[in-house]
Amino acid sequence: MTEISTLGEFGLIRHLTDNIQIKNESTRKGVGDDAAVLDYKGKETLVTTDLLLEGIHFDLTYVPLKHLGYKSAVVNFSDIYAMNGQPKQITVSLGISKRFSVEDLEDFYEGLALACEIYGVDIVGGDTSSSLTGLCISITCIGEADKEKIVYRNGAKENDLICVSGDLGAAYMGLQLLEREKTVFAGEKNFTPDFAGKEYLLERQLKPEARKDIVKILNDNQIIPTSMIDVSDGLSSELLHICQQSKVGCAVYEERIPIDYQTAMMAEQFNMNVTTVALSGGEDYELLFTIPLHLHDQLDMIEGIKIIGHIREVSLGAHLITRDGTEIPLTAQGWNAF
Amino acid sequence: MTEISTLGEFGLIRHLTDNIQIKNESTRKGVGDDAAVLDYKGKETLVTTDLLLEGIHFDLTYVPLKHLGYKSAVVNFSDIYAMNGQPKQITVSLGISKRFSVEDLEDFYEGLALACEIYGVDIVGGDTSSSLTGLCISITCIGEADKEKIVYRNGAKENDLICVSGDLGAAYMGLQLLEREKTVFAGEKNFTPDFAGKEYLLERQLKPEARKDIVKILNDNQIIPTSMIDVSDGLSSELLHICQQSKVGCAVYEERIPIDYQTAMMAEQFNMNVTTVALSGGEDYELLFTIPLHLHDQLDMIEGIKIIGHIREVSLGAHLITRDGTEIPLTAQGWNAF
Repeated sequence: MTEISTLGEFGLIRHLTDNIQIKNESTRKGVGDDAAVLDYKGKETLVTTDLLLEGIHFDLTYVPLKHLGYKSAVVNFSDIYAMNGQPKQITVSLGISKRFSVEDLEDFYEGLALACEIYGVDIVGGDTSSSLTGLCISITCIGEADKEKIVYRNGAKENDLICVSGDLGAAYMGLQLLEREKTVFAGEKNFTPDFAGKEYLLERQLKPEARKDIVKILNDNQIIPTSMIDVSDGLSSELLHICQQSKVGCAVYEERIPIDYQTAMMAEQFNMNVTTVALSGGEDYELLFTIPLHLHDQLDMIEGIKIIGHIREVSLGAHLITRDGTEIPLTAQGWNAF
Repeated sequence: MTEISTLGEFGLIRHLTDNIQIKNESTRKGVGDDAAVLDYKGKETLVTTDLLLEGIHFDLTYVPLKHLGYKSAVVNFSDIYAMNGQPKQITVSLGISKRFSVEDLEDFYEGLALACEIYGVDIVGGDTSSSLTGLCISITCIGEADKEKIVYRNGAKENDLICVSGDLGAAYMGLQLLEREKTVFAGEKNFTPDFAGKEYLLERQLKPEARKDIVKILNDNQIIPTSMIDVSDGLSSELLHICQQSKVGCAVYEERIPIDYQTAMMAEQFNMNVTTVALSGGEDYELLFTIPLHLHDQLDMIEGIKIIGHIREVSLGAHLITRDGTEIPLTAQGWNAF
């Protein structure tokens, strides 16, 4: 293992960024100056940022650094897709404590570079610093969108259909699974629990994808959602964001919430209500959006998107309609670590 | 003091960002969606980012949170000015440990908002998170520039004059002073050391300014530097960045390095070489730039800018010419905390 001090700050930055190839025409100047220079030629610029802290957002006991690099990038891309835009550049700031080696950071950057390769994004800058404690990752993603195609959270209208891509709750069950195995194997080095039949849950937690494909399909079908958000905190919280910002209410049907078989099985094992998991689990990075009612049939034909409810007037509130027809008010949770 | 948990994540974000007024036409959508939306209408977009970690970049024993907010913003603006651009938007991510109250964060945001007010910048987004340890601040600044006016680090040519704004080393001496008083008064609550006659050093360390005025003066005089960088790590390090990227050498004259009287006095007291302080101190946030030789007389008339040397061919290396004519190779230091 190579100690970071052998390279120094500038050596480390060079070492990690030397192989970066610029992919986008909009990247006029990447790493290496006081600022990156971008040119979107008349399109709108989108900016989003995420802070990931060791012990809060990730646990290096079971998260490989390469996966962490991949995920750190993808969660930011997801925010840009949620605006109906295309991510184009990221800046990457890292606070690194002494226990990390150059090879560790190479692993992290490998995952980061892989995500950027797959999603067509350039790394254009960042900052590295030593940290007194754990690993600190701050990524800012910049993207572009046609002005008339940007989708905000505030455009949902009464009678719009509420749609969600993929399935929900798997990432959260993956986290529960990893946490359980960590406890069981506490103290053992190189613990290798048996995850057979649960691969999907782990992948959803450790190596999530952003729904670039859904944005493309909607665009190919000339569908512009009236509102959109990505599911990072859980379905319930995201629905409330849309309702609050659009000044509307909503009804979502429990039986229509898409849940994978592995998610349901694992929730059963953990004695958890799978609907609660889907509503509050988070980290699914699926797209939640609303479309006008008349697009129902067109949308119904698109694979991987499910209509789960509809927008209604604000006085009716935001509710889950359970299988037996009961209306339960949706509640939001942010982090509660304080 | 109000515990942050009483507001929750979303409440806290609303509380801190509710009063934000958008100042720039280029800010199409600020805080409150998955991403901010910017429109630079044909100009180039500049992006820079900085990570500030408690215990590494700042010590809350003597840094008031309002000052910290101000400085966190200003150091990013400085990078945009160093491209000959104008900062327009920032995103602010905070990792906050339990010992901070809502009022603490209000102080931080007050400083941040003041800097944004003075420099005409909009806060357009960010992320808040709990932190297991200290305060973690990540700011990304986005700015604009006319394509043909952007100044990179790589444009310095042989015989160009090397110029620097303001004076150097004061921020570093301010830090030394604060560190000394902290040690002397260790354990005493509300320690109030006597800083009379040293106000300038403290202000340079605690509340630095970015040189918006210098960028304006150069522009008013139709001077576009051939290369430019801001002095964050120290003159020596920044000169080497320009030399390496421009593939040139340089000669800088010790006697011409601008140093304030208070800086010199304090260096004397600390038994430090004041030239070393100016070369390696950092955090001055002055602008270091090169201009063609024929602009000498024009530049010489501008107050607050000093010509400190010239660019020469790469084989001659990068040197300091001391008062007695000795040539000493410049060396760079990044952080050495590892």
